[in-house]
Amino acid sequence: MLIRKKRGNFLEDFHVGQLFRHKVGKTVTEGLFNAFTEFGMTTNPLCKNLRYAQRYGFRGLIAPPGLVMNLVFSQSVEDISENARANLEYRDMRFGAPVYMGDTIEVETTIVGVQPSSREPDRGVVHVQTNGRNQNGEVVLSFQRKVQVWKDNAAAKIATAALPEVPAIPCNLVLPAHEASRRYAELAHLTNADTYFEDFTPGDTIEHSRGRTVTTAHMALTAMLDNTSQVHSNQYLIDQNPQKYIGGQLIVYGGIPFNLCLGLSCPDVGDNALGDVCYVTGRHTGPVFVGDTVFASTEITGKRDYSGRPDLGIVATILRGHKFVRKSEAWEKMEIFYLEREMAVKRRSYYA
Amino acid sequence: MLIRKKRGNFLEDFHVGQLFRHKVGKTVTEGLFNAFTEFGMTTNPLCKNLRYAQRYGFRGLIAPPGLVMNLVFSQSVEDISENARANLEYRDMRFGAPVYMGDTIEVETTIVGVQPSSREPDRGVVHVQTNGRNQNGEVVLSFQRKVQVWKDNAAAKIATAALPEVPAIPCNLVLPAHEASRRYAELAHLTNADTYFEDFTPGDTIEHSRGRTVTTAHMALTAMLDNTSQVHSNQYLIDQNPQKYIGGQLIVYGGIPFNLCLGLSCPDVGDNALGDVCYVTGRHTGPVFVGDTVFASTEITGKRDYSGRPDLGIVATILRGHKFVRKSEAWEKMEIFYLEREMAVKRRSYYA
Amino acid sequence: MLIRKKRGNFLEDFHVGQLFRHKVGKTVTEGLFNAFTEFGMTTNPLCKNLRYAQRYGFRGLIAPPGLVMNLVFSQSVEDISENARANLEYRDMRFGAPVYMGDTIEVETTIVGVQPSSREPDRGVVHVQTNGRNQNGEVVLSFQRKVQVWKDNAAAKIATAALPEVPAIPCNLVLPAHEASRRYAELAHLTNADTYFEDFTPGDTIEHSRGRTVTTAHMALTAMLDNTSQVHSNQYLIDQNPQKYIGGQLIVYGGIPFNLCLGLSCPDVGDNALGDVCYVTGRHTGPVFVGDTVFASTEITGKRDYSGRPDLGIVATILRGHKFVRKSEAWEKMEIFYLEREMAVKRRSYYA
Repeated sequence: MLIRKKRGNFLEDFHVGQLFRHKVGKTVTEGLFNAFTEFGMTTNPLCKNLRYAQRYGFRGLIAPPGLVMNLVFSQSVEDISENARANLEYRDMRFGAPVYMGDTIEVETTIVGVQPSSREPDRGVVHVQTNGRNQNGEVVLSFQRKVQVWKDNAAAKIATAALPEVPAIPCNLVLPAHEASRRYAELAHLTNADTYFEDFTPGDTIEHSRGRTVTTAHMALTAMLDNTSQVHSNQYLIDQNPQKYIGGQLIVYGGIPFNLCLGLSCPDVGDNALGDVCYVTGRHTGPVFVGDTVFASTEITGKRDYSGRPDLGIVATILRGHKFVRKSEAWEKMEIFYLEREMAVKRRSYYA
Repeated sequence: MLIRKKRGNFLEDFHVGQLFRHKVGKTVTEGLFNAFTEFGMTTNPLCKNLRYAQRYGFRGLIAPPGLVMNLVFSQSVEDISENARANLEYRDMRFGAPVYMGDTIEVETTIVGVQPSSREPDRGVVHVQTNGRNQNGEVVLSFQRKVQVWKDNAAAKIATAALPEVPAIPCNLVLPAHEASRRYAELAHLTNADTYFEDFTPGDTIEHSRGRTVTTAHMALTAMLDNTSQVHSNQYLIDQNPQKYIGGQLIVYGGIPFNLCLGLSCPDVGDNALGDVCYVTGRHTGPVFVGDTVFASTEITGKRDYSGRPDLGIVATILRGHKFVRKSEAWEKMEIFYLEREMAVKRRSYYA
Repeated sequence: MLIRKKRGNFLEDFHVGQLFRHKVGKTVTEGLFNAFTEFGMTTNPLCKNLRYAQRYGFRGLIAPPGLVMNLVFSQSVEDISENARANLEYRDMRFGAPVYMGDTIEVETTIVGVQPSSREPDRGVVHVQTNGRNQNGEVVLSFQRKVQVWKDNAAAKIATAALPEVPAIPCNLVLPAHEASRRYAELAHLTNADTYFEDFTPGDTIEHSRGRTVTTAHMALTAMLDNTSQVHSNQYLIDQNPQKYIGGQLIVYGGIPFNLCLGLSCPDVGDNALGDVCYVTGRHTGPVFVGDTVFASTEITGKRDYSGRPDLGIVATILRGHKFVRKSEAWEKMEIFYLEREMAVKRRSYYA
């Protein structure tokens, strides 16, 4: 008998309230940590300098937010989005316990809503809530997302349905306490002098100076994350039916520019953050292909106290990614990524 | 004086009974482990989830069979096949002790036979027996291979010769005992529910759903394995004499599709295996180049008990790799890899 | 307000005597160690075989000189050469304590001289002294370099200036003592038999047999080293003004061929070295682009005793890198790298 096993789920396979405990799980080796942290050009010493991370009370280098997000997200891909057309929105993504090398992350997802497309009979939207936990059961990340998924059978009847409310998963940033005895100022030269809480002014927009061109290395990074979506790495699939796929070519997995935009912004807004707290909403507003050069900017939208932590403040921002597309002789700027991002940022008065 | 050192051996350098203790040796860093395990898309949690591997009685993540094979094989390349035209056959490849991160692997090879080509005066076949051991002297892999090697001097006279028999190297799969107290079923959600011993039916063929396109990253992976064969990474060499080389271009090192086919098959046949036991025979039946998309299928050829392990059974299979080649407007399927593979697979009745 | 932060410094930002304590710092993960050590094809077992490294008295695998150089150099890029046009010369590069996985390297640089170009009003040369230290404060590398840097404002007035002398940083190769009780000869088969001190003859030139083609993977390696120079990875920048940049395309970061030439030479001159002692001078004599195949040769220029170490000798060499460029139908050899290199090499009489 010839067997073609279906991998991943289609729109008609999801029902509201369904819980997926995702397969495999993932131990963060030093190889994975290095590959993903470095390709993004993160400059926060908490992720790169063990002496600094330990001085701050962490027990080792901590994974940058782009790696935490990608680790948890990717574990959910086979069950939720291997047969997706597009990831529509991230929502209420909150960070919890820090992720260290050697940690093992396992992930589960609840189906919150299912909605068939009113215009296109072959697809619809699934709304999910996903959480990742480490080997001690601590939540490291919690988020919702909405994803557009193909039907396996376009004729399948699907009713719109939703849970009365999205399950609440406690997930709050875990940070070591501030202790003056740690003499943080001795290491202040390892970060920029103008990225403390006091330095940000709501209304300002910072154009980050660096850009990075995307190469075919995106495929190795995507595999490294266990992301099995075929539109990122199966050229033959695309060649059979290019008009079905965005851009008619392999598309770069969104977690790659997500991580890259976080990294490109880091020297200007992130190297004195102790952690990212929450991504209120986010979406990929344009596709990325091999050869594109990714840039980023950060708009400061607000500042507020961090409850219980006088040494820190919350900086609210919008992180945008963009690329330039050649139109005849001119280059046109195209937005590719939008993220409402809140960070826990050190106050200079406590640390420098 | 200008010195051009010869690297590797040519057909006339081999004699029957000769023992090569290969140079350098290789410690498995977390970087190597990650790069090679992940590029292959292995989904067996023993290789990816430390919590799961420890629950099963392993002391850490274990290298997937494709990495073990590549580690040992590649250490033998400089001495045996740096000057090879093609690798003809793997034979009786048996797995022994598991390979962990931090292990150091050293390798030796005995020349079993030498046979000049009857039609082509510039080449011949060498038959070898190769073993890899860890730092404790335990054999981790043993195999024979036949490789077609160039002569350095086409006029060299070479007699056909062979050892009376291939040296027998004890090498049997080392597995932790089954212990009911480990409550394996608690982690059963981390693997597929339909890949236990009971699920396989001889005669079935499973077409694995995923494909992966090969990029120039193959060169970094090949270097990472210490494989020094120039046909994988020296474009200038090819450009000097393209008609000498298969396809007239850089050819992807066979260990890359070998590992990839094992990984592509993993979610359908390998994620509930505790290990690969033996590859009876195997060969690369077609070349792979950058841009090819690799697919795999598994034919179930037999099932039998695993002596002394009622919790396991042996599943005998043929793992095939293929790609599609465009011929004018149509795509033609071409086999690239053939491997007779036996796995030690968990019985559902003991584990789920 | 729209803010465009300047990154890196321009010629007018440097003044003689200025000290930069470079930001971030770098812990050598097993991922970084593997990626960089392996891409270079180093064959020294001290960098690859833990059993061998420990037998020699090291506490772990040691970073090859190409990785040490790249680690320290790259930490200085943002402050010194992010806005450089070209790196002109390395000088008096000396190695100190070995670098192990897990070490954290921090770097500082003193500005030794500044000299505006007499012909080109938009650039000039900065002469610097750079040192890297590990977490224990031990110097692991010290070197000077001269780098051609753009002005931010071509009209800026800059005076030629220099320190009366270059600061002297004690930095000498730290090696475990020779102890006969270690029975080194038991492991002599792991290195070549013809690369001991006794084997080298001043005046000889060795053409190393292997070549390696450079792929777009250079960009991931460059990011992994924290090298932020945009000419290696920002295609859009180049496309805006190709005639401004060497070759009119992305240029491969010099540390890549530097490391590669060291590795390509290793089986012929480096696998029985306990360390590189000093690079008297070095420079990139030609550019490297994706698709080029890099080769290397070593000229033996001298031999002498190693003071206090009768088991070792110093071998002085010139390491050259080259590539071939197609000119109509012919291929022309072009030098790309020149390095005066002194190594501490084992004497056969003590080790084999």
